[in-house]
Amino acid sequence: MAITDDTGGSGEASSHGDYDLIIVGAGPAGLSAGIYARRAGLSCVILEKGVPGGQVLTSPKIENYPGFQEIEGMKLMEVMAEHARAYVDIREGEEVIRVTRVDDRFELATTTGKFSSRAIILATGSYHRHLGVPGENRLSGRGVSYCATCDGFFFKKRAVVVVGGGNTALTDALYLHSIGCTVTIVHRRDAFRADKHLQDSISERGAEVLFDTVVDEIMGAEEVDAVKLRNVKTGAVDTKAVSGVFVAVGEVPSSQLAAELGVKMDPGGFVTVDMSFRTNVPYVYAAGDVAGGIRQIVAAVHGGAAAALSAFEDLAKPYFSRYSG
Amino acid sequence: MAITDDTGGSGEASSHGDYDLIIVGAGPAGLSAGIYARRAGLSCVILEKGVPGGQVLTSPKIENYPGFQEIEGMKLMEVMAEHARAYVDIREGEEVIRVTRVDDRFELATTTGKFSSRAIILATGSYHRHLGVPGENRLSGRGVSYCATCDGFFFKKRAVVVVGGGNTALTDALYLHSIGCTVTIVHRRDAFRADKHLQDSISERGAEVLFDTVVDEIMGAEEVDAVKLRNVKTGAVDTKAVSGVFVAVGEVPSSQLAAELGVKMDPGGFVTVDMSFRTNVPYVYAAGDVAGGIRQIVAAVHGGAAAALSAFEDLAKPYFSRYSG
Repeated sequence: MAITDDTGGSGEASSHGDYDLIIVGAGPAGLSAGIYARRAGLSCVILEKGVPGGQVLTSPKIENYPGFQEIEGMKLMEVMAEHARAYVDIREGEEVIRVTRVDDRFELATTTGKFSSRAIILATGSYHRHLGVPGENRLSGRGVSYCATCDGFFFKKRAVVVVGGGNTALTDALYLHSIGCTVTIVHRRDAFRADKHLQDSISERGAEVLFDTVVDEIMGAEEVDAVKLRNVKTGAVDTKAVSGVFVAVGEVPSSQLAAELGVKMDPGGFVTVDMSFRTNVPYVYAAGDVAGGIRQIVAAVHGGAAAALSAFEDLAKPYFSRYSG
Repeated sequence: MAITDDTGGSGEASSHGDYDLIIVGAGPAGLSAGIYARRAGLSCVILEKGVPGGQVLTSPKIENYPGFQEIEGMKLMEVMAEHARAYVDIREGEEVIRVTRVDDRFELATTTGKFSSRAIILATGSYHRHLGVPGENRLSGRGVSYCATCDGFFFKKRAVVVVGGGNTALTDALYLHSIGCTVTIVHRRDAFRADKHLQDSISERGAEVLFDTVVDEIMGAEEVDAVKLRNVKTGAVDTKAVSGVFVAVGEVPSSQLAAELGVKMDPGGFVTVDMSFRTNVPYVYAAGDVAGGIRQIVAAVHGGAAAALSAFEDLAKPYFSRYSG
């Protein structure tokens, strides 16, 4: 079903138009926001710097989005983008360079021109820090993973290493241990910075921990079969046979636009939202990985929908009450 | 893919067993929780008093769950239940009568026996108050709706009545107005109890408001084509041609078990949860409609997943820290 008219919105049929709502990012959060916004009658566009799909595109297999028992990440995003396109225009290759507030409008400068809107949803995502070692990119999705909750299950009862020393790394290790993996944690420092209760849980389970150790290479022809490890203090090197490498050395939210808008963020740079996915800045909402929480498709589609409905509610307020809160 | 073994859990192959986690309710929230819990290695069962699907079963058509452009509610729930069954046992016709905390376990008495667990997810849903007038049940899903966000779009640019005078009713009316509906609000009292800004927005849009008025009958052969209205002060009756009747006279959460567990609720009886879907009671989580928020499938699948991951994290804590928080 294609929707060709804009009801109740202020958008004009212009290639660089003025909208009720602009959604930045076409991952699952942005796509869901687009569906909900248009169904609520808001004029709306999604600006995507690359192609729709976000980080999901890199997942060879997804089994935990309810309704799709097993699907390639790329395929799921194709289906979701097609669903969204029935409602909303997705402008690909349209990167937002700068956003400013001018009177009651946001003005967005992109790589191709200017857009403006009364409200913005930031669905800009995040990316995982990489180790930057040989084999990592080549074997990504073939044994190298950046999300235990997403991919751990594929490694059930096999030997894996988790790289990192923070809360995410240790939670990943517990998750993998829980599904029967033989887990080795590799950390470049001599102590974890994770919460004490996580460290205690790791001890309780007797997971192997290698401090002062780095991964120098990830090996395998078609799939990961080993990692090359090096002790940074002794210089000793070792090769360990594993099926999986879970890299948990940090996740970086794409929150530059949020910063420009003065949106409140946590120390890691993730945008702080309330249960309605409103930020502290009126008419600015955030959803998906940039807003923290569990980094899962289910969370993203919820965030996008809720943010769009919050935008609808806020924009429906009469003009005179809009600025008094 | 069927998973036949329980890794890392304490569940035994028993018809009335002991589990890491019991999920009460097999709507989208409960089903999603089951998928995530089992993938995290928790032993788990879903107890459902009826059949899987929850309120979604009553929706003839769903267009806003990303990935399914148009699907019958019943069909979507079939697909989702099948997905969940690949991971977790769903016990249908198993109503939880009573839940008590005994030492470090919850004990649940059901219509057929007893279960116990270390953690509980309440995914018990809610139901909408009905008007209780002739035609309402017969035409439900055929013009009669209890959710404008879900169904409003099907009534684009047509004449509808919204019944009620609270925030939900007026928000529904604004939503329907935004998509080009001709909206009449019917309220049995002489004033709205909704927030002032919503009342102002309704005035600003010039939507018709009929105070002191009730719906006596919903009419139509196959689909709604009119409502019979009565002024409760003058007794005057009138028939109004409409395509849709949006009933917004209250939603009642199924929060009896939450009350037994001492879980904090809002004045409407909806369970209060944080962003991780934890309640104030340790090892008790809530997701889906019973936990308030937007009453949408996207919110339910997120809540279920997040609650299961929170349960996993809490249960992974070492024994000695489990009771000190």
